[in-house]
Amino acid sequence: MAKRLIPTFNRILVEKIVPPSQTTAGILLPESSTKLNSGKVISVGPGLRGTEGKHIPPSVKEGDTVLLPDYGGTQVKLDDKEFYLYRDEDILGTLHDN
Amino acid sequence: MAKRLIPTFNRILVEKIVPPSQTTAGILLPESSTKLNSGKVISVGPGLRGTEGKHIPPSVKEGDTVLLPDYGGTQVKLDDKEFYLYRDEDILGTLHDN
Amino acid sequence: MAKRLIPTFNRILVEKIVPPSQTTAGILLPESSTKLNSGKVISVGPGLRGTEGKHIPPSVKEGDTVLLPDYGGTQVKLDDKEFYLYRDEDILGTLHDN
Amino acid sequence: MAKRLIPTFNRILVEKIVPPSQTTAGILLPESSTKLNSGKVISVGPGLRGTEGKHIPPSVKEGDTVLLPDYGGTQVKLDDKEFYLYRDEDILGTLHDN
Amino acid sequence: MAKRLIPTFNRILVEKIVPPSQTTAGILLPESSTKLNSGKVISVGPGLRGTEGKHIPPSVKEGDTVLLPDYGGTQVKLDDKEFYLYRDEDILGTLHDN
Amino acid sequence: MAKRLIPTFNRILVEKIVPPSQTTAGILLPESSTKLNSGKVISVGPGLRGTEGKHIPPSVKEGDTVLLPDYGGTQVKLDDKEFYLYRDEDILGTLHDN
Amino acid sequence: MAKRLIPTFNRILVEKIVPPSQTTAGILLPESSTKLNSGKVISVGPGLRGTEGKHIPPSVKEGDTVLLPDYGGTQVKLDDKEFYLYRDEDILGTLHDN
Repeated sequence: MAKRLIPTFNRILVEKIVPPSQTTAGILLPESSTKLNSGKVISVGPGLRGTEGKHIPPSVKEGDTVLLPDYGGTQVKLDDKEFYLYRDEDILGTLHDN
Repeated sequence: MAKRLIPTFNRILVEKIVPPSQTTAGILLPESSTKLNSGKVISVGPGLRGTEGKHIPPSVKEGDTVLLPDYGGTQVKLDDKEFYLYRDEDILGTLHDN
Repeated sequence: MAKRLIPTFNRILVEKIVPPSQTTAGILLPESSTKLNSGKVISVGPGLRGTEGKHIPPSVKEGDTVLLPDYGGTQVKLDDKEFYLYRDEDILGTLHDN
Repeated sequence: MAKRLIPTFNRILVEKIVPPSQTTAGILLPESSTKLNSGKVISVGPGLRGTEGKHIPPSVKEGDTVLLPDYGGTQVKLDDKEFYLYRDEDILGTLHDN
Repeated sequence: MAKRLIPTFNRILVEKIVPPSQTTAGILLPESSTKLNSGKVISVGPGLRGTEGKHIPPSVKEGDTVLLPDYGGTQVKLDDKEFYLYRDEDILGTLHDN
Repeated sequence: MAKRLIPTFNRILVEKIVPPSQTTAGILLPESSTKLNSGKVISVGPGLRGTEGKHIPPSVKEGDTVLLPDYGGTQVKLDDKEFYLYRDEDILGTLHDN
Repeated sequence: MAKRLIPTFNRILVEKIVPPSQTTAGILLPESSTKLNSGKVISVGPGLRGTEGKHIPPSVKEGDTVLLPDYGGTQVKLDDKEFYLYRDEDILGTLHDN
């Protein structure tokens, strides 16, 4: 039975994107194009709380492709799949196709 | 006589879930499915206080299944049963069956 | 002449409960039932102050049975009896008979 | 000419109480009754300031008998008498005769 | 396919300016004129959040030429080009031609 | 030409009082009466700023005789005379003749 | 082409004043009169921001002669001239001719 995790506070559950090391046509990609440490946002917490307790929504949302820091993040295994929890302030930015 | 603990502030009393290492039918489960560090919330404190003293309710509630950090938590023994106290900000998220 | 101490701020004066190591009928209790580090609240301070100086009442009150942390607390001797001062945020919870 | 010190902020000027080591009738007191580290409040500062600059009056007042921490305090000599300055948050409580 | 990064919070994406070591006419420039550690702002985050969650816009904007600190900044590679992420409070100032 | 210093924020410019080691009549004073580390306030800054930028006036004023801490203070030489800058929170109190 | 730097936040761009080691008439000045670490304010940032994002103007302004701390400050070279950036809270005071 699949488990779903709803993070607390400003925690963000991320599935890391493993970049393909060759194209679908079988051409090996040069190393530089595989380096970006990015992930897909799976679920987000309700956000931190302001001084009077109101939630401040996190800066990224479900489905976003995000740039991750090289270090940090807490590994979580749900149904044999690896995920990572980050605080939203540690996520460097969102990635978009031009 | 059983003792009941009502935590202070944003402390959360948790009973750890010991995952079954075999199914009820006696089939041994692979190690990976037993690894999640989770627990059941037994009781919660009234929450931290905002700048003017109002309580900010904690982010989890009695009965929640929660994902716990690998380290931390204060062990408490009540009537020979082991429990753990966590600050609600240290609890990583709530677990739900899909 | 007996001395009475009224703590300042969120300090809590506690008299530790020494658990009986045998029942009144003389039966030795197993070690595990004597381990809880608890105490009786003797007096409480008016509480910390919010940003504008108003007192935020402490989270426990006179007469409460409280669960204490394993470390910390300041020993105070009043009229040859030993007491301990704790900050109310260091008290783990209140204990109640079910 | 005698000097008077008015402390700044939440500083408290205290004269330590040296407990008599024998009663006025000459009976030596047991050591345990002489141990309390207490003092008399000589003068208090106007208190710390809240975020908008208003003074928050200190938690003890002139004439109070106070319980002092074992360490800390700044020694001040005025007219050959020894006094100690404490921050009001370091004073443990006020002592009262029952 | 080109990737675009929108930084989170007060992060600023900067492309460093590599100063020409000779003029377009081929005259070698003295070392002192090549030393300034500056960059072009490529994109900016929405800014940090105030106590109630409102964004505080960052202090520099897209297109600004900025003076960078000698240390710090997180290297990011997008489409084989090198960029740097800085917190806006770490950027020393904006550079303008007189 | 004499220089005048107006301190910034809650800085206080102090001229230390060197206690006479003998009375004007030539009688040597015992060491204990010369020990107080005091000074005269020469000029004060406008004070720190509250959260909205308003100045919070410092706790001492020009002309006050102040009790100084044994350590700290920044030495400043103006027109060959030695002065000391203190943060107003480091000044222990004001001294008054009874 | 001359570059102009507008500092961010409460940063202050300062040009240090090198005191003449002899008078214009050629008389060598004694060492003590050359020691003051002072500078001229060249440009100031818009100031830090309060909790709701409003700028709090810095405590010194363009053209002020300021007393600098002995340590700290970030060296910046603009058009071969040396400048220093300070946070306005690190500037000790403003110097005025009486």
